Amino acid sequence: MFTMDKSASSVGIVQPCDFEFGRVGEGVLLDNGQNFGPVTVRYETYGILNKEKSNAILVVHAFSGDAHAAGRYGPEDEHEGWWENMIGPGKGLDTTKYFIVSSNVLGGCRGTTGPNSINPATGREYGMTFPVITIHDMVKIQKELVDHLGIHSLLAVIGGSMGGMQALDWAVRYPEQVRSAAILASTSRLTAQGIAFNAVGRSAIMSDPNWNDGDYYGRAVPARGLATARMIGHITYLSDESMRTKFGRRLRERETYGYDFDDLFEIESYLNHQGDKFVERFDANSYIYISKAMDYFDLGERYGGLANAFSQAKAKFLVVSFTSDWLYPTYQSKEIVFALMKASKDVSFTEISCPFGHDSFLLETERQSKIISSFMDTVYEGR
Amino acid sequence: MFTMDKSASSVGIVQPCDFEFGRVGEGVLLDNGQNFGPVTVRYETYGILNKEKSNAILVVHAFSGDAHAAGRYGPEDEHEGWWENMIGPGKGLDTTKYFIVSSNVLGGCRGTTGPNSINPATGREYGMTFPVITIHDMVKIQKELVDHLGIHSLLAVIGGSMGGMQALDWAVRYPEQVRSAAILASTSRLTAQGIAFNAVGRSAIMSDPNWNDGDYYGRAVPARGLATARMIGHITYLSDESMRTKFGRRLRERETYGYDFDDLFEIESYLNHQGDKFVERFDANSYIYISKAMDYFDLGERYGGLANAFSQAKAKFLVVSFTSDWLYPTYQSKEIVFALMKASKDVSFTEISCPFGHDSFLLETERQSKIISSFMDTVYEGR
Repeated sequence: MFTMDKSASSVGIVQPCDFEFGRVGEGVLLDNGQNFGPVTVRYETYGILNKEKSNAILVVHAFSGDAHAAGRYGPEDEHEGWWENMIGPGKGLDTTKYFIVSSNVLGGCRGTTGPNSINPATGREYGMTFPVITIHDMVKIQKELVDHLGIHSLLAVIGGSMGGMQALDWAVRYPEQVRSAAILASTSRLTAQGIAFNAVGRSAIMSDPNWNDGDYYGRAVPARGLATARMIGHITYLSDESMRTKFGRRLRERETYGYDFDDLFEIESYLNHQGDKFVERFDANSYIYISKAMDYFDLGERYGGLANAFSQAKAKFLVVSFTSDWLYPTYQSKEIVFALMKASKDVSFTEISCPFGHDSFLLETERQSKIISSFMDTVYEGR
Repeated sequence: MFTMDKSASSVGIVQPCDFEFGRVGEGVLLDNGQNFGPVTVRYETYGILNKEKSNAILVVHAFSGDAHAAGRYGPEDEHEGWWENMIGPGKGLDTTKYFIVSSNVLGGCRGTTGPNSINPATGREYGMTFPVITIHDMVKIQKELVDHLGIHSLLAVIGGSMGGMQALDWAVRYPEQVRSAAILASTSRLTAQGIAFNAVGRSAIMSDPNWNDGDYYGRAVPARGLATARMIGHITYLSDESMRTKFGRRLRERETYGYDFDDLFEIESYLNHQGDKFVERFDANSYIYISKAMDYFDLGERYGGLANAFSQAKAKFLVVSFTSDWLYPTYQSKEIVFALMKASKDVSFTEISCPFGHDSFLLETERQSKIISSFMDTVYEGR
């Protein structure tokens, strides 16, 4: 019998690791002024770190992502990592050449310290006593991890969406440690519209009586609020065109209107499903904290403009946007590119024509792989 | 002391009227097969119906609108009707020439029979026992009103957004009675994305424990769910550009980040306010029923295509779209225009460059007034 080898050109079976640092009340100095610890960072690695430690790439995830970017946790595991199409032998991020590090962000709920972690000072989950964090705070704990791994210079920091914000922050805040940065479907700051969508998501969660001011661990979680937030988010990750192609105006399990509330359009049923699925894997308080961190992010703000911010960067930059991405539209990528050019930095920019909306950076493989692998080649050969 | 005369070029003080028809279980034959009654239709009129009854224009409102399109209810009333900028002496819809009729839709909560009305058969509010309705059902009760007023031929049916759907339906379903139809910022059917936004709004309401399967009259209403639905809606009515211009990334009442949850961006605070305000004037069950009616609307569907649907129309058409309207984008207006041309109908089309998003049809006065008044002149002179 012929069975396709699912591990072909995959990193195969992977193992998550935890890195812990800091003591109670002491660990990382957050942007809010608090010295916060201890911190656990959940991370995974793919490929082999070379002797010179010069082939390391840090992959940073988007809003609802996690450390599990590639491979499977066991032979029975049906789900591969979220960037399986980009990470592996011969792929855009070629694990035969590069050592990939991927970690869950601070404030997350997938292994790294976040609102659902136990506060050692109280023995209870942080909930809303978790400190308000920023994108730069996320980056600070990634730096602790990278230092811990003995990597003095990252070949690249690569991320899409909120991952792009982190990659930008890395290049500006730790210029000596970042040889290149790839910014996919991202922005140097959210638009008012982007803040608005996040705000409504938070409001939906906080309106759920089960939210209980964030104190719901061990009881019924604010499932409906979190599902609503995810449904809103999901609309913004797709595009008008991709929704039309995938769902159109088709009804679910019906040919004609029944004129009752069992009439569900396919898109409606899909969003309900996405909302419910999300509740199983994501913590509502993490949604609140991480979305707030995204709202705060404004790279140019503390430097008196984006070009000034970039003036200290030493990295080569790759900026990629997608035609159908209306959440982080191309004009925002161009703002980054123009500021980099104004600061006389080395930058490549491509807008990929792709119908999948903001999610394109997760779904489009062919052109993105080529662009990223050739960018990485240039950086790797020039190291 | 000089005080501006607020009634200058206004229709001034107006009085809402009620038209009632039908008996219990008998009134209007709905698309779901039910014969529904009695029905009360709340309406207002502006201007004077001429002797020939040939100068009547029916204005049909959008999702959350009502019969109160122009004027004020008394000298102390601070709020004018929702289309005050278009209806009045010398305005786009000139009340010195035309007799304007405006009514609240079936399923609404502003005077016309809807889920919050008392079901005479039970003595209690309908709630979710209200029949599932369609745009055509709304139009049917408008026809009852127009017939009741003795108007055999409407000079025009005019509406924006969901009002445009009703105007289209009028022109196709009652061709003998409609001399012209003006379709503003509208569509012959929602996109999957449009359905998605409505579905999330309904889901937010139904997730509110106070919704209680629609049975909440006389108790705490599902305020949080309805506010969330409105916040989502509001984002879709504005544009990225208008939000940036109006709110940008400014914080409310703060200059710099406080890194706590009192940090509200202006847009966030605005949406909270809009959500709360909406709860005071709108019924959550009406939101559910009316949004569902919009989702159902697909003018071409029962005729085997839009051009076929239009083949029976006898009206002149005006179609107007707005550049920044991403909820009912211009390409949807063009679909209507192409189908009308294919059906050899008389159609004028304009895309107005305007930054206010979908709400442009409510906010843009100058060009819209000229376009509508010259269109009306043509129809009126050719009557």
